[in-house]
Amino acid sequence: MPSPAVDGQKRGYVIPIGGAEEKIDNPEILSKFVELAGGREAKICVIPTASRLEDTGSRYETLFRDLGAGQADSLPIAERSDAQDETHLDIIENATAIFITGGNQLRLSTILGGTPVAKAIRQANARGAHVGGTSAGAAIISQHMIAGGNVGIVPTEDGVNLAPGMGLINTVVVDQHFNERNRLARLLSAVSYNPFLVGVGLDENTAAFIDEDNIFTVVGSGAITVVDPSDIEYSSMAEARRGEALTLLNLKVHILASGARYDISNRIAHID
Amino acid sequence: MPSPAVDGQKRGYVIPIGGAEEKIDNPEILSKFVELAGGREAKICVIPTASRLEDTGSRYETLFRDLGAGQADSLPIAERSDAQDETHLDIIENATAIFITGGNQLRLSTILGGTPVAKAIRQANARGAHVGGTSAGAAIISQHMIAGGNVGIVPTEDGVNLAPGMGLINTVVVDQHFNERNRLARLLSAVSYNPFLVGVGLDENTAAFIDEDNIFTVVGSGAITVVDPSDIEYSSMAEARRGEALTLLNLKVHILASGARYDISNRIAHID
Repeated sequence: MPSPAVDGQKRGYVIPIGGAEEKIDNPEILSKFVELAGGREAKICVIPTASRLEDTGSRYETLFRDLGAGQADSLPIAERSDAQDETHLDIIENATAIFITGGNQLRLSTILGGTPVAKAIRQANARGAHVGGTSAGAAIISQHMIAGGNVGIVPTEDGVNLAPGMGLINTVVVDQHFNERNRLARLLSAVSYNPFLVGVGLDENTAAFIDEDNIFTVVGSGAITVVDPSDIEYSSMAEARRGEALTLLNLKVHILASGARYDISNRIAHID
Repeated sequence: MPSPAVDGQKRGYVIPIGGAEEKIDNPEILSKFVELAGGREAKICVIPTASRLEDTGSRYETLFRDLGAGQADSLPIAERSDAQDETHLDIIENATAIFITGGNQLRLSTILGGTPVAKAIRQANARGAHVGGTSAGAAIISQHMIAGGNVGIVPTEDGVNLAPGMGLINTVVVDQHFNERNRLARLLSAVSYNPFLVGVGLDENTAAFIDEDNIFTVVGSGAITVVDPSDIEYSSMAEARRGEALTLLNLKVHILASGARYDISNRIAHID
């Protein structure tokens, strides 16, 4: 669950990104992230844990500095013992924004789950620090995380594997590389398990900037597909056999391109 | 447009099939087609024009006879002049059911479009003959036919190529191999051009048996995805540039597995 808000302070933005965000030519998502973080005053902390590449953290340090961030530090957290380190916790506590890189979301959940670093990230967000994540880093942000699942359109009873995520947001399940990897089936499977969830499918180079009121704005070149199961009239999920196509009546779907907005709490889409 | 109903006679079923229907092990779609056609009394006419394979027509003749059809004749229509042939027209006029095979739907529209054979098929359906088609043969059935388009989820202004079809049904646009080839993007593009259309995406080995009241029942192992844009609140279709992701607010979507029903005229899904 999200940490409770700190008295008199607004929660920071939560910013899932669908992966493959533009880094050089027109890096509008990363630029907006640096701007929100404070620009020259920014202290950005990079969590490269999802990646097995040595240079992922230093690459984002350089990117953020090139985009005008005053400070950007990557924390070398590669195993659970690293996620207790006091120096790391100090940096997170003082950060204006935290960025979680891509890689494998099960590395994030298995290495960070239940550690002081995970708690510090939630507390930082509650006091106003912004938390962004791309690809695996976007998946880990929500309470219920998609760890894997089937490709395609039509959902099945066994079409998605959910795992507990970091819990910065609760009522949303996020998927990434959405259009590029044809992931509607697994998102539909996830929301039809329990219609309290809203499904948010992020295309590559596309981000949801979720503000403290749980309203997000779409930034980037792709779309965000929102699947709202709240008016669902019938689902065969509980009766279906493994692998069998499901019947789901009355799903609401929105396709949201750059500039469109979605109110997660009230489940309303806007274009202004 | 469909031919007007003949006095005192019901229109025959219209049966689009999503391709790759099971032919040997559990051919429930083809069996139901033969049963509707009259079983021992059936006179089934096969239109193999979409296919470039020599044996497509004779293969279906054998299949239908093996499933108990009294008579099954394939019409060798391979060019426009064949579609004037009086012998062919006689067979269509006397058929209890007509089956259009798969292949390339642009062969069907370019060879049959505007010919006496196309007109005879519409008239046969109006007097009560059932018309089924698989894959390309399903596409050609509706007034507005998907000839091609983009793979994926997110629609674009140029995401689909429509062509005039045979017009047995009017307010529906059909797509096939739907889950298998990830065709939601092109179906969404089609229905967002003009929301009078309902999008019907048929998985392989899955058919919509559409009765004379425009209510269909799902038969087969996959699902039918229905996209109903009638409550759409906003679409950026008219303003979007080529290739740009669209914003579409408030689409209604149903996923319908075997046995589920959909009332096309009233746009209501049922499970009974």
